[in-house]
Amino acid sequence: MVPDDIAGFFARRAELDAEAHLELDFTFECVGDPRLAAAHLCSEQSTAQWRRVGVDEDFRPRFGAKVLDLEATPRPSGFSYPVPNAPSGAVHACRVTIAHPHGNFGARLPNLLSAVCGEGIFFAPGIPIIRLEDIRFPETFLAAFDGPQFGVAGLRAQLQAFHRPIFFGVVKPNIGLAPEPFAELAYQGWLGGLDIAKDDEMLADAPWCPLEQRAAAVGAAAVRAARETGVPKVYLANITDEVDRLVVLHDLAVARGAGAVMVNTMPVGLGGIRLLRRQARVPLVAHFPFIASFSRLPGYGVHSRVITRLQRLAGYDVIIMPGFGARMMMPEGEVLDCVRACLEPMGGLRPSLPVPGGSDWAGTLDGLHRRLQTVDFGFVPGRGVFGHPMGPAAGAASIRQAWEVIAQGGVVAEHAATPVELAAAFAAFGPRTS
Amino acid sequence: MVPDDIAGFFARRAELDAEAHLELDFTFECVGDPRLAAAHLCSEQSTAQWRRVGVDEDFRPRFGAKVLDLEATPRPSGFSYPVPNAPSGAVHACRVTIAHPHGNFGARLPNLLSAVCGEGIFFAPGIPIIRLEDIRFPETFLAAFDGPQFGVAGLRAQLQAFHRPIFFGVVKPNIGLAPEPFAELAYQGWLGGLDIAKDDEMLADAPWCPLEQRAAAVGAAAVRAARETGVPKVYLANITDEVDRLVVLHDLAVARGAGAVMVNTMPVGLGGIRLLRRQARVPLVAHFPFIASFSRLPGYGVHSRVITRLQRLAGYDVIIMPGFGARMMMPEGEVLDCVRACLEPMGGLRPSLPVPGGSDWAGTLDGLHRRLQTVDFGFVPGRGVFGHPMGPAAGAASIRQAWEVIAQGGVVAEHAATPVELAAAFAAFGPRTS
Repeated sequence: MVPDDIAGFFARRAELDAEAHLELDFTFECVGDPRLAAAHLCSEQSTAQWRRVGVDEDFRPRFGAKVLDLEATPRPSGFSYPVPNAPSGAVHACRVTIAHPHGNFGARLPNLLSAVCGEGIFFAPGIPIIRLEDIRFPETFLAAFDGPQFGVAGLRAQLQAFHRPIFFGVVKPNIGLAPEPFAELAYQGWLGGLDIAKDDEMLADAPWCPLEQRAAAVGAAAVRAARETGVPKVYLANITDEVDRLVVLHDLAVARGAGAVMVNTMPVGLGGIRLLRRQARVPLVAHFPFIASFSRLPGYGVHSRVITRLQRLAGYDVIIMPGFGARMMMPEGEVLDCVRACLEPMGGLRPSLPVPGGSDWAGTLDGLHRRLQTVDFGFVPGRGVFGHPMGPAAGAASIRQAWEVIAQGGVVAEHAATPVELAAAFAAFGPRTS
Repeated sequence: MVPDDIAGFFARRAELDAEAHLELDFTFECVGDPRLAAAHLCSEQSTAQWRRVGVDEDFRPRFGAKVLDLEATPRPSGFSYPVPNAPSGAVHACRVTIAHPHGNFGARLPNLLSAVCGEGIFFAPGIPIIRLEDIRFPETFLAAFDGPQFGVAGLRAQLQAFHRPIFFGVVKPNIGLAPEPFAELAYQGWLGGLDIAKDDEMLADAPWCPLEQRAAAVGAAAVRAARETGVPKVYLANITDEVDRLVVLHDLAVARGAGAVMVNTMPVGLGGIRLLRRQARVPLVAHFPFIASFSRLPGYGVHSRVITRLQRLAGYDVIIMPGFGARMMMPEGEVLDCVRACLEPMGGLRPSLPVPGGSDWAGTLDGLHRRLQTVDFGFVPGRGVFGHPMGPAAGAASIRQAWEVIAQGGVVAEHAATPVELAAAFAAFGPRTS
């Protein structure tokens, strides 16, 4: 690229058709002129060679990504991370907003990912360190996607659970139990107050606990628990499997008694979820394996809210994500960004229920509620229910007791002496006081 | 976990059934006792709670991942990367080999990924920094996968190209051309000596260049070029799309004239490839978007050779990967690791042809050949052919001329004065000497 070429990759927002472009926010660190680096970033993600040799043409006006905004700050200390074979020279830290013409690929999730987190992003000359921080879609692009089928309101109606969080529990031991004892644990959790008893993300359609028998046993337990408690109870089955099995396992699990199904998004691929969405008759729940591998380190990779937005676009009604606290090693702001990406307006798409989780128990509920400032969230303990020293019914009860305190404006830790289930939870899972 | 629990997650190799376990190599940085951290890493990726409350049982012997080997070295300087909310305390850098019972999930790629790069890996207590460095599969696990249908030998037979690299060219301009002018460029490239003219990874089934018309035009051009040159010519069509379109687009492209098809692996999902493999009638080619987002930074994420191995397992005949040189910012050893993962013995699976690429042209071929020490590789220039100042036929010819020099034991740069196409390539793409 020669200096005269750079201007072809810059534009003012008013010059472009907003409906024809995605907007991408990146942070990056580059060597050399930041304007040249930003132009390369646009070129590489769109039309890398914009004319044929010997032909007077220019594909940039229609097909080129364009820089809308660029801020560059010198970084005298060099790159933040030691990238092998990185270019050497004076480094700038940059923020850039780029308009990317979605007509280059259309409303297809794999092609979208290839464009916004692909070779053109991570191999732009002079830019060894880059992170896709956020993505914004025009209405016409969003209109090509179904989004959540039930959304938060649909899930609440299914559960008859209003004006409060939704209480999930991950049945533990997560791996190794046969269907009947597994169902018994779920049943105990429901009696204690869970709305949804769920499979762990690692529990598949395994020969020692086949999904068909598991769904039948746990589904029957859900019916019993609903009858005895007088409120709906849902079994959330993990149907993560090869992509051609998703619809098969959805149909099987639902026919046997599952009221919702879960998929590990990145291991399966976002496109698989979109396919499942068209056939699904129950809420779809996302789990988050693999996402941390490209989102944990500041300034490199892909911000987790981008994946949250894409999961909502693909059609998940519920999105489980790493939550607050030292255990999940997430910056508080990033969790809040992901929660907002679930709930904020997004074209005509329904909201997804955010479920920030990780080593939760009765004592972590008020911190979560205080940070989120809404009741539109899910709470998903595992051992906090199924490792409770008095058993799963007591574990679930301790969660509901904690919520009762919160709903009345109290502080849970100050009410942890009684009832007995809540007291036992604090003794087992709370800060060591001895 | 109490100290007595740790031993349940350690084993000697001789005690375990090797055929029942995957072996995983991780590097990680932890706070606290490295043995405790390694035990947590095993627990979180397998049976996180290994007994029911009040039941005398232990799921670890059958279902628990086990540490086979652990080395720990103090890191007085602390963590290599600034992870927000990371635990504080004395840090150790560790290498660990773990035996993971694949019966926990079976021969399913999404569940495998969930186990070996999922929540249990990236959220193990005390381990904010971790990288999956390598994975080894027992024969019985490999036997459940088809692997490449054609492999290197099958591709060579299709192309009648033996004892030399396979010459690919990425048609440029990559985005914006209609089918007929696109086909004309491919035709020129074939006349000049390309084996395979290919779509860019960003070129989809777009309304301005529909795959059906593109495959028809480029396929017809391949027939003409084969007739005129007397050797087979292959059009490699990018069929990256929503997962339920892969087989449809494969069938369409092949019916119209494509001789191979390409998929962007991670954006689609590995499982989608395995599905396509069962229906494919032509070689499958992998492209690498997204992989750098989790593999570039040393010590964090997933080593790219793991993804290479999984791509071979899924059934790709050809694996395009970031290659040598400053442009792709890959450590030389990592490229070699990925090349070996394509070619080395892997149960009964055929080898995949490795194609390390990135800003290649005639002058980069001998460096690639020298580093690989084999002719079993593909060479994939884009602008080096289609941006050649004398046009694509000359660009392709310059590549073949470079290979002639190498095949006779020469150094390409020393023979760059003639022929004219090679000289023009050095003038256009070579180091600036003015």
